[in-house]
Amino acid sequence: MGSVFDEKDFLACCGSTKFGKEMVAAAPFSTLQDSIRAARHIWFNKVDVNGWLEAFAAHPQIGQSPSKNHQSPTFAQWSKGEQSTALATATDSTLQELFEWNARYREKFGFVFLICASGRSTPEILAELKIRYQNRPIIEFEIAAQEQMKITELRLAKLFTEKADTAP
Amino acid sequence: MGSVFDEKDFLACCGSTKFGKEMVAAAPFSTLQDSIRAARHIWFNKVDVNGWLEAFAAHPQIGQSPSKNHQSPTFAQWSKGEQSTALATATDSTLQELFEWNARYREKFGFVFLICASGRSTPEILAELKIRYQNRPIIEFEIAAQEQMKITELRLAKLFTEKADTAP
Repeated sequence: MGSVFDEKDFLACCGSTKFGKEMVAAAPFSTLQDSIRAARHIWFNKVDVNGWLEAFAAHPQIGQSPSKNHQSPTFAQWSKGEQSTALATATDSTLQELFEWNARYREKFGFVFLICASGRSTPEILAELKIRYQNRPIIEFEIAAQEQMKITELRLAKLFTEKADTAP
Repeated sequence: MGSVFDEKDFLACCGSTKFGKEMVAAAPFSTLQDSIRAARHIWFNKVDVNGWLEAFAAHPQIGQSPSKNHQSPTFAQWSKGEQSTALATATDSTLQELFEWNARYREKFGFVFLICASGRSTPEILAELKIRYQNRPIIEFEIAAQEQMKITELRLAKLFTEKADTAP
């Protein structure tokens, strides 16, 4: 059985329009590994820097819930799930610090701090943010793109699981 | 004697608003070398990726004249001068090829092909464009930023020369 995903499904994994379209063109995928291989190729070779910025912009600030009006409800729901460890380990003061550092990061780099948050505690995320804040903008831009790819891979796995669950 | 450049002067060297403001904050510069050192630091460490895209967008497509309504007449005039070798060595057919490859480049990368054109012929530029077209978007983004820095350095030198010429 091949996959039967549409553009909306892929946009829930990564918010670049080009990524969504190219994944549809590369589909169907017979295995999760096939889809990940295609996604990596598209993300790093075909999506341009504007597309990277577009994908980053689909993410909420870390420590915050996605907007209720997010264009992809699945994206918003997954984003919340990925941050569950962070939220469970947050205190008022670490959340406040995270909020402040997020603002500094955004001011320096022009996009949100992006990290594959699955299983990571708030103190861990905060420590990573402070280290990455030191980077030059172009270095940080590439690291953020690598984190986006990790998130995309986890979400493609979810897509395969969910579609398998609902297959007739 | 220190330099007496304003933001408009720096924006004629590099079209990033942040670059212009930071250069004003770092001024005055007692030598050209001082100004280049500051410019390099600002461009690679302080200007974010959006600022890079903003600076790239100030350039005309190579082989074409800057728009008559360019926000910086000095920028437009210098840009034309830097392309004088290219224009002198161009034929109708190389210009047509350059035009077509520019369009392909822009379609792939999302910004104009940027090259420090001073002293370079149209065939040379065309050959370089075809090679660089193969790059991954993030690699090409960094190369374009390095080319922008070369252009900026040449223009800072012009700024120093012109201001010296007009000094009382």
